[in-house]
Amino acid sequence: MEEKKKTADEIMLDRMKEMKMETMYDRYQAQLPQCGYGSLALCCRHCNYGPCNIDPFGKGPKKGVCGADANTFAARHFLRMSGAGTACHSDHARAAAHLLVATARGEAPGYRIKDVEKLMMVAECFGIKTKDRKINEIAEEVGEMALMEFGKPYGTLLFLKRAPESRQKVWEKLGIAPRAIDREVTESLHRTGMGGDQDYRNLTLQAMRVALADGWGGCMIATELQDIMFGTPKPTAGRSNLGVIKKDHVNIIVHGHEPQLAEAIVLACGDPEVTKAAQAVGAKGIVLSGLCCTANELLVRHGIPMAGHMTIQEAAIATGAVEAMVVDIQCVMQSLAEAAKSFHTKLITTLSKAKIFGAEHVEFEEEHATEAAKKIVMMAVANYKNRDKEKVFIPASAEPNIVAGFSHETIKYMLGGRYRASYRPLNDNIINGRIRGVVGIAGCTSPKAGVCEPSYINLARELIANNFLVVATGCAAGQCASDGLMVPEMKDACGQGLREVCEAVGIPPVLHSGACVDNSRILIAVSEMVKEGGLGNDISELPVAGACTEWMSEKAIAIGQFLVASGIYTVFGMNSPVAGAPDMQRLLTKEMEEMCGARWDFESDLKKIGKMLMDHIEKKRDALGINEKKERKLYDMAERRALERECKPAAHH
Amino acid sequence: MEEKKKTADEIMLDRMKEMKMETMYDRYQAQLPQCGYGSLALCCRHCNYGPCNIDPFGKGPKKGVCGADANTFAARHFLRMSGAGTACHSDHARAAAHLLVATARGEAPGYRIKDVEKLMMVAECFGIKTKDRKINEIAEEVGEMALMEFGKPYGTLLFLKRAPESRQKVWEKLGIAPRAIDREVTESLHRTGMGGDQDYRNLTLQAMRVALADGWGGCMIATELQDIMFGTPKPTAGRSNLGVIKKDHVNIIVHGHEPQLAEAIVLACGDPEVTKAAQAVGAKGIVLSGLCCTANELLVRHGIPMAGHMTIQEAAIATGAVEAMVVDIQCVMQSLAEAAKSFHTKLITTLSKAKIFGAEHVEFEEEHATEAAKKIVMMAVANYKNRDKEKVFIPASAEPNIVAGFSHETIKYMLGGRYRASYRPLNDNIINGRIRGVVGIAGCTSPKAGVCEPSYINLARELIANNFLVVATGCAAGQCASDGLMVPEMKDACGQGLREVCEAVGIPPVLHSGACVDNSRILIAVSEMVKEGGLGNDISELPVAGACTEWMSEKAIAIGQFLVASGIYTVFGMNSPVAGAPDMQRLLTKEMEEMCGARWDFESDLKKIGKMLMDHIEKKRDALGINEKKERKLYDMAERRALERECKPAAHH
Repeated sequence: MEEKKKTADEIMLDRMKEMKMETMYDRYQAQLPQCGYGSLALCCRHCNYGPCNIDPFGKGPKKGVCGADANTFAARHFLRMSGAGTACHSDHARAAAHLLVATARGEAPGYRIKDVEKLMMVAECFGIKTKDRKINEIAEEVGEMALMEFGKPYGTLLFLKRAPESRQKVWEKLGIAPRAIDREVTESLHRTGMGGDQDYRNLTLQAMRVALADGWGGCMIATELQDIMFGTPKPTAGRSNLGVIKKDHVNIIVHGHEPQLAEAIVLACGDPEVTKAAQAVGAKGIVLSGLCCTANELLVRHGIPMAGHMTIQEAAIATGAVEAMVVDIQCVMQSLAEAAKSFHTKLITTLSKAKIFGAEHVEFEEEHATEAAKKIVMMAVANYKNRDKEKVFIPASAEPNIVAGFSHETIKYMLGGRYRASYRPLNDNIINGRIRGVVGIAGCTSPKAGVCEPSYINLARELIANNFLVVATGCAAGQCASDGLMVPEMKDACGQGLREVCEAVGIPPVLHSGACVDNSRILIAVSEMVKEGGLGNDISELPVAGACTEWMSEKAIAIGQFLVASGIYTVFGMNSPVAGAPDMQRLLTKEMEEMCGARWDFESDLKKIGKMLMDHIEKKRDALGINEKKERKLYDMAERRALERECKPAAHH
Repeated sequence: MEEKKKTADEIMLDRMKEMKMETMYDRYQAQLPQCGYGSLALCCRHCNYGPCNIDPFGKGPKKGVCGADANTFAARHFLRMSGAGTACHSDHARAAAHLLVATARGEAPGYRIKDVEKLMMVAECFGIKTKDRKINEIAEEVGEMALMEFGKPYGTLLFLKRAPESRQKVWEKLGIAPRAIDREVTESLHRTGMGGDQDYRNLTLQAMRVALADGWGGCMIATELQDIMFGTPKPTAGRSNLGVIKKDHVNIIVHGHEPQLAEAIVLACGDPEVTKAAQAVGAKGIVLSGLCCTANELLVRHGIPMAGHMTIQEAAIATGAVEAMVVDIQCVMQSLAEAAKSFHTKLITTLSKAKIFGAEHVEFEEEHATEAAKKIVMMAVANYKNRDKEKVFIPASAEPNIVAGFSHETIKYMLGGRYRASYRPLNDNIINGRIRGVVGIAGCTSPKAGVCEPSYINLARELIANNFLVVATGCAAGQCASDGLMVPEMKDACGQGLREVCEAVGIPPVLHSGACVDNSRILIAVSEMVKEGGLGNDISELPVAGACTEWMSEKAIAIGQFLVASGIYTVFGMNSPVAGAPDMQRLLTKEMEEMCGARWDFESDLKKIGKMLMDHIEKKRDALGINEKKERKLYDMAERRALERECKPAAHH
C-alpha cells in the first residue's frame, strides 16, 4: 500500500514532537476523558448554589438545587453560547463601525472609503439620503446608524429587510425579529441567570433571536462596513500552507479576526522604507501572511497568503522563522505565549480588550493605526537578527494556489456578467440539475475530530463530486484551501454537471467567501436566490444546506443557529452541545423545522455528514418538483449549449 | 439547656419533610459532593475543545486545550459572572425606562409620575432642561435618555458624575469608566470567548468596568426610575415571615425582581370590587405579600408584608394557602412548578422573557397592566374554592414588625430634618465615635450556609452591638427582617453609641434600603458622606464596608465587584469564586487595593466576617485620625447633649 504523502501540517506536528514542543493535541489528550456532565450540558455553574450536575443515567440528581432540569440546563447553556458568539462578531462589527465614522471624519489616517458602490447600497438599505451628498457625509451617517444598531431603544435591525418577506414573517410570527444587537445579548444573559427563563422552548426562541442579531446584525455589519473600507472581495490569487513562510525573509503573521490593524500592516509592508530596513538586516524582504480569520479577511481582499487555520497557530511559531505573530482577538490561543518562548518570535497583542499574559502589547488606535502598524513591522525587522537559524524548519510541501474572494456580489457578477449580474444562471443550473444544490461549510477546526483530520476537505470533495456547489468560510475555508480545492482546475474533481458550470463560469467548485463574519454573505446569497425565483418562496425551500464538521467556538453555535433560524438545514459534526437533554435535542433537531422551516442535525460520524446534506437537498428538490423533469434536461445537448452561452465568462475576462 | 424556639422557616421545613415535599435543601444534599473543578473555577466550557479542567493539585493538566491557565479560567468565569449579573439588573432597568417613557406619554394607564422631586433631580443630573416644562415632557426625556444609557455609541454613563471626583479619577486612570451598559456586557462576553482576553488582570479590569455599569448604571437607573414612578421609599411599617399568609383570606404572593406588574397588583388588590369577589367566595379579603426582591420593592414603598426571602419560596407554597404565586424574573426557582402541583396554587409567569415549564402565563404589557393585574387577582380569587383546607399549614410564629424604606434621601432627611437634610450628623457621629462606621449587607440566602442559617442576622447583631450602623438590601434584608431587627426598638441590642443615635433620630439600627438594585442607594449615600466632609476625600477612605455572607446569584458578584471598584472593602462568605487560581485570588483580595483602594475578602467561617469588617473599619478610622481624640468625646456630656439636640427628629414627627 502506498503511504499517503504527509501534509505540511503533519510534517510540522512531527517536527514539534521531535522538539518536545507541547501542542493543542497533547493538551487535548491530557484532558481525556473530558467531563461527561459538561459534554452533555448536564452541568450548570450559573449560580453559587452549584456547580450542579444532572445524572444522565437517571440514578443521581435529576435537577439542580434550584429545581432546573436537564432541558433548562442545556437550553440555558445553548442560549449563552449563542449570546457569546453573537457578542464576538458584534463587538467586532462595532469596531468596524467606529472605524468607518472615524474614516469618514478624516480622523483615521491611512483608511479610506474604498467601495463606494457598497456604501451606497448600505446607505439605501438604511434609508439614508445619498443624492447630492459627499461620500464622506454618507459614510459618516452609515457608520453612525450602524453604531445605533447595537443600542437603539426601539425597532428591529435594519438589515432584516434584506431577507425574503416570507422569512421576515416567520420571525415576526415567532416574535424573534431581533432588536438592538447588544440588547439581545444582554437579555440572553439575563434570561439564563439563575431563576430566569426556565422553559427550554422559550430559551431557544431567544437563542434564535440573538443569533439572528448575529447573522443579520453583527456579522452583516462587519462584512459590509469592512467591504466599504477595505474593498468588496473579488477573485484574487493567493497561496496556502505553512510553506508561505519564507526562510530568507522577515516573516510577520497576523492572526485573529478584526482586520483593522492588519489592513494597516498590509500597507506598512508595502512601504519601500520597510523593505530597505529588512534588507539592511540581511533579509530579502518581508513576507506577511495570515492565520485564522484575519488571514481570510486579507486573503479575500488582497491575496495575502494564508499560513493556516486555527489548529496550525502553534506550528507556525514552531517554524522558527516568524519574527512577529501579531494578534487581535478571538481564537488566539494563550499557548502562543508559551510557544513563542522557545523561539525568538515576538507575540504582539494589539487590542486593549485582548491581552495575553506574557505577550508584548502595541495598542491599535484608529487615529494612529499607520504608526502602530509600522512600529510592529519594524519590531519584526529588528527581531530578524535574533532568529536562531538552526531552529528554522519550514515544511517543504507544496503551497497550493487559491482563488479566493467570492463575495455574494462576485458570485452574482461572475454568473451573470457585468451588465446583468444575476443569480439567474445559478438558479437555472440548480433547476436543470447540473448543480444539485449549494452547501455552505463554515466553522472551526478541532483536535476532537482527530489529528490533522481533513474533515472539511473530505466533505467538500464528496459534495463537488456529486455536483453540489460549495461555499466555504472561516477555518473550514482555510482547511479546504490547504488541499488546493479552491482553484478553477478543481473542476476535474467535480461531477459532470458542476464541472460544466465551473468551466463555463470559470470558478472553483469550492468558493472561498471569507471569514466567519462573512457567513452573512451566505444569508444575502440565499435571499437573492429566493428573489430570483424558481426555487420556492422562502429560504427554507431552497436546495441548500450548511455544515460545520469541527465546531469549537461559541461563534459556531451562533452561526448554526442563525442559519437554521434563517431557514437553512445545518449539520454540526462531532457532538451535540445539548446531548444530555433529550427534549432540547429533539427541539433543535426536529421541532425547529415546524417553527422556522429548518433544523439542526448533529452527527458524530463525520463521514455520514455528506450524505445527510445531499439527502436533505434532494428532498428539497423533490418538494420543488425540479427533480424529475429537470434531470432529463441534464442530457439535453441543446439546453446545455444554450446554458454554456449564457454562462460564458463575460467580456471582462 | 433551653431549646431555641423554632423560626417560622424551620417550622415550615419540618412540615415539608413530614409531607415528603422536596426542598432546595434536599436537592443541595443530593448534589454533594459538588464538582471540585467547578467550585474552584478550574472548569472551562467556553468552547467545544472542552470541557477542560485544571488539576488543583498540579498532577494533571495545568492548562486547557487552548493553553489557557487557571488564572485565565478563573478570571474569565469571574468576568462572565459580573457581566451576567449586570445584564440582570440592567435589563430590569431597561424595562423601568420603557415604562417611564410609556407613562409619560400616557400609554401606560395605571402608572403615573409619583415623585416629581426625584424626577427633577435625575433630569438635572442628565442635563435636561426643566424650567417651564411639563412634568410629562421632562419624564419622557429622562426615560429616553435612560434608554440611551444602554446603547449610546459614545461617552460614559451619566450617573458616574454622582461619585466623588477622586473616585471618577481612579476609574479614568484605570480606563474602566463604563460606556453604554449593554456594550460592556457584550464586550465582557466577547473578551471571555475562546482565544480572546487571556490576561487575568486585564479581564478583571473589564469585570470592574461592567460591574460599574451595573452599580452606577443598571442598578441606579432601576432605583431612580422606579422611585419616580412608584415613589421614593419612606419609613413604612410592614410585617415579615410566612405568618403574613392568612388562613381566611385569598393569598397572593408576588415574587421576583421587576416590580412593574406587582405595583399594578397592589392597586388591583385595593379595588373594592375585588374584595367583594373575594368575600363572595367565602374569604375575608385578599392578602398580598411578597417574596425576594419584588417583596423588598413593595415593602419599602407600600409596607406590603414580606412572606420571606429567596430560600423560603417553596415553603410559601407548602402553606397550602396560596392561591396564586405571581412571578416576574430572577431567583424564581423552577422547582415552584413542581411544588405547586401538590397544592391548588397557581404559578403564574408574567414576562415573555421568563417562562417556566408547567406554569400558567399572563403577559405583562405596559398598556394593559391594570387589566393583567386584575385578571391575575381574579384568577387567585377563583382559585380559593380549590384550596384543600386539610392541607393548610401556616406557621403560628410571630410576624415581626418592620420599619423599612430607608432610601438615601430618607436617611439624609431623618438625620438632618426636613429643612436641613444632610449627612452631617452621620459623619459627625462617626467622627465622634458613637457610630464606628457603616456596613452594607446585601445579597442572597443559600443552603450552602446551612439549613435556615441566620448568618445575616448574626452578623447584623454583632455589628450593631459594637456600634456599627447596618444598611441592608435584598435577601440579606429579608433575613434580618424575619428576626425583627428592623424596628427602632432594636436600639436595645446596640452598643451605647449607636443606641444613642438611634434613639435620637428614631431609626432602627438595621436599615432596610430595598431590593438588590437598591445597592445603588448605598453608592449615593457613601458619595454624599464623602462630599459632606470630615471623612476623607474618597469613598475608599470612609469607615464603611460591604458584606454578603451567603452569595448565590451572579448578581451578587456584580454587586461585590462594583462595591470594591467604588472603593468599598467587601467580604463574601462561604467560598471564593476564583479559589483555584491563586494569582487571581490574590488580585481580588490584595492587589485590587492598590488599583482602586479597596479589595475583596472571602471567608468560609461566617463567624469571622463580623470581626473582619470591624477591623477594616477601625483601620480606616485610624487612617483618618478619628480614633484617638474623638473617642474621648464619646464621654463628653456637653458634646453629647449638643449632638442630641442636633439629631432630634424634626418637626414632622
